Amino acid sequence: MRTANPSAQPAAITIDLDSIRQAHERIRPRIHRTPVLTSRSLDALAGARLFFKCENLQKTGSFKIRGATNAIFSLSDDQARLGVVTHSSGNHAAAVSCAAAWRGIPAFIVMPKNAPAVKCRAVESYGGKITFCEPNVTSRSETAARIQAQTGAVLIHPYDDDRIIAGQATAAKELLEDFPQLHAVLAPVSGGGLLSGTSLAAKSLCPAIRVFGCEPQRADDAYRSLATGTLQHLETSDTIADGLRASLAPRTFAILLKFVDGILLVSESEIVATMKLVWERLKIVIEPSSAVALAPLLRPTGLKEIAFPPDHGSTKPSIGIILSGGNVELKW
Amino acid sequence: MRTANPSAQPAAITIDLDSIRQAHERIRPRIHRTPVLTSRSLDALAGARLFFKCENLQKTGSFKIRGATNAIFSLSDDQARLGVVTHSSGNHAAAVSCAAAWRGIPAFIVMPKNAPAVKCRAVESYGGKITFCEPNVTSRSETAARIQAQTGAVLIHPYDDDRIIAGQATAAKELLEDFPQLHAVLAPVSGGGLLSGTSLAAKSLCPAIRVFGCEPQRADDAYRSLATGTLQHLETSDTIADGLRASLAPRTFAILLKFVDGILLVSESEIVATMKLVWERLKIVIEPSSAVALAPLLRPTGLKEIAFPPDHGSTKPSIGIILSGGNVELKW
Repeated sequence: MRTANPSAQPAAITIDLDSIRQAHERIRPRIHRTPVLTSRSLDALAGARLFFKCENLQKTGSFKIRGATNAIFSLSDDQARLGVVTHSSGNHAAAVSCAAAWRGIPAFIVMPKNAPAVKCRAVESYGGKITFCEPNVTSRSETAARIQAQTGAVLIHPYDDDRIIAGQATAAKELLEDFPQLHAVLAPVSGGGLLSGTSLAAKSLCPAIRVFGCEPQRADDAYRSLATGTLQHLETSDTIADGLRASLAPRTFAILLKFVDGILLVSESEIVATMKLVWERLKIVIEPSSAVALAPLLRPTGLKEIAFPPDHGSTKPSIGIILSGGNVELKW
Repeated sequence: MRTANPSAQPAAITIDLDSIRQAHERIRPRIHRTPVLTSRSLDALAGARLFFKCENLQKTGSFKIRGATNAIFSLSDDQARLGVVTHSSGNHAAAVSCAAAWRGIPAFIVMPKNAPAVKCRAVESYGGKITFCEPNVTSRSETAARIQAQTGAVLIHPYDDDRIIAGQATAAKELLEDFPQLHAVLAPVSGGGLLSGTSLAAKSLCPAIRVFGCEPQRADDAYRSLATGTLQHLETSDTIADGLRASLAPRTFAILLKFVDGILLVSESEIVATMKLVWERLKIVIEPSSAVALAPLLRPTGLKEIAFPPDHGSTKPSIGIILSGGNVELKW
């Protein structure tokens, strides 16, 4: 279901590379600097040199711990005292629960009732207190507001928050510190926390780099928002990429409008085939949302869609891919 | 089926830390220095701090490329000219094929006809020429000898070879360079190339460290060989750990007798449960043989079996685990 929200225009951009550097200093002692993997067989399939930033190997199994840790450790003791509340389909929920436990404060988590069981168990394992809601934006926000009023907890929005965006940006910062020669970076996009942070960090550190968001066809609000210049919303989505069912917010939309070169859409079958290929070739477990960021490059048109070769001659492009998480139900 | 071979006594030990250092210099430009992963949830289950050396993320998907590269790049041009021949249930086969391709020479590979399809495809993808044999030691050796006679290729034995042992030892060398404080290292054992190299490297670099081999109950020749002091053979085994169906050789047996502190046996159900746990918690794909090296620590008696706590008081032991490979058929 698609809706446009003409009143929701892009916000002003209020973070920069300094915010990202400060976030990195704040979270560095608590998170992993995740490895970057390569695969000659995947390079051959893509016709490019691929550098996979493995946030599936990050603490809590996704990049979300970066933003959550930055947000929660940015709070003053007085702000933090009554805990934090958030709504999330899963990975942000686990991350907020974990970071709140590190800080020693309660975490109240609103999750859609169709969230994967593995993600609910993760929240509980970190001590988060779950309240289930209907799987739509309105129910999420209303439930979170109610809990906020009842408990006095501080809302940590999953992406419409500068502290979250600055935290998520540190994955791309690490990748580009390790591999500054990259021609492009691809990341999945949902609410836009990861992609806005990635694009802001990448363009600030390497002005010539190109940055693309990757999105399921079944959850194409970012594609339509950038195409129309007006923020679009998904009310619901049934994509297998369960981490990508949210819509952009004014804050992330503004950053994407300025720093992102395009949004690439992928089908459900491309997501599944790519996920399997990564498990087989890279020997790592990724969730469907992660596969979305590689899938476009496996199409015959992949490099053309990101405008290679423009002037690179015979040089194979070097492309960074942010594998966002690895929290998937194993059925066997 | 079990047989003792009283004539096969341990050989003299003809490699040392210098051989391992030379091997590392030789192979370093061609292999990955694999990452070491940690997991608080697995630590909690084991009651120890665990450091997973991820050879499943190594080139060709297992540690075997270390030994194969060292052996093949140790050959003179004249020795290498007619190619190499080997017999292997899979990972050594892929590794020899890959290293031979790097050197630009043919690789003739004898594989048991029940080898996993994924491992056969890997050999072919590197250009190895497969000849299938019966799944027993006699057929393997006879088929390899015949091909050797026909082609003039040099035999690269999968483990009864100092160059192979020195190469496999570099995984433990890297692990202990990164984490010299480890109290123990666990590795799977089959023919003993990995475990002999691991124990020789570990005891040479850290004399106080303890080293244990881990083996399926269904393929317990190393356990019985060390218990009796006489080299024992498996004629066949049907363990799910398809990489651990070979038997020790005189050369590896000698090193194990001197440097290994014990062999821990695990059941088939422990192997499967551990493999699933690693996929879930570490977000990496490992094959059953890799799970064998963690499985003993997940038993209530795990630390006692490796004699902790001896004099460590309240300090949790730090234990390195070599995850040997990730080549497993994905069924979905």
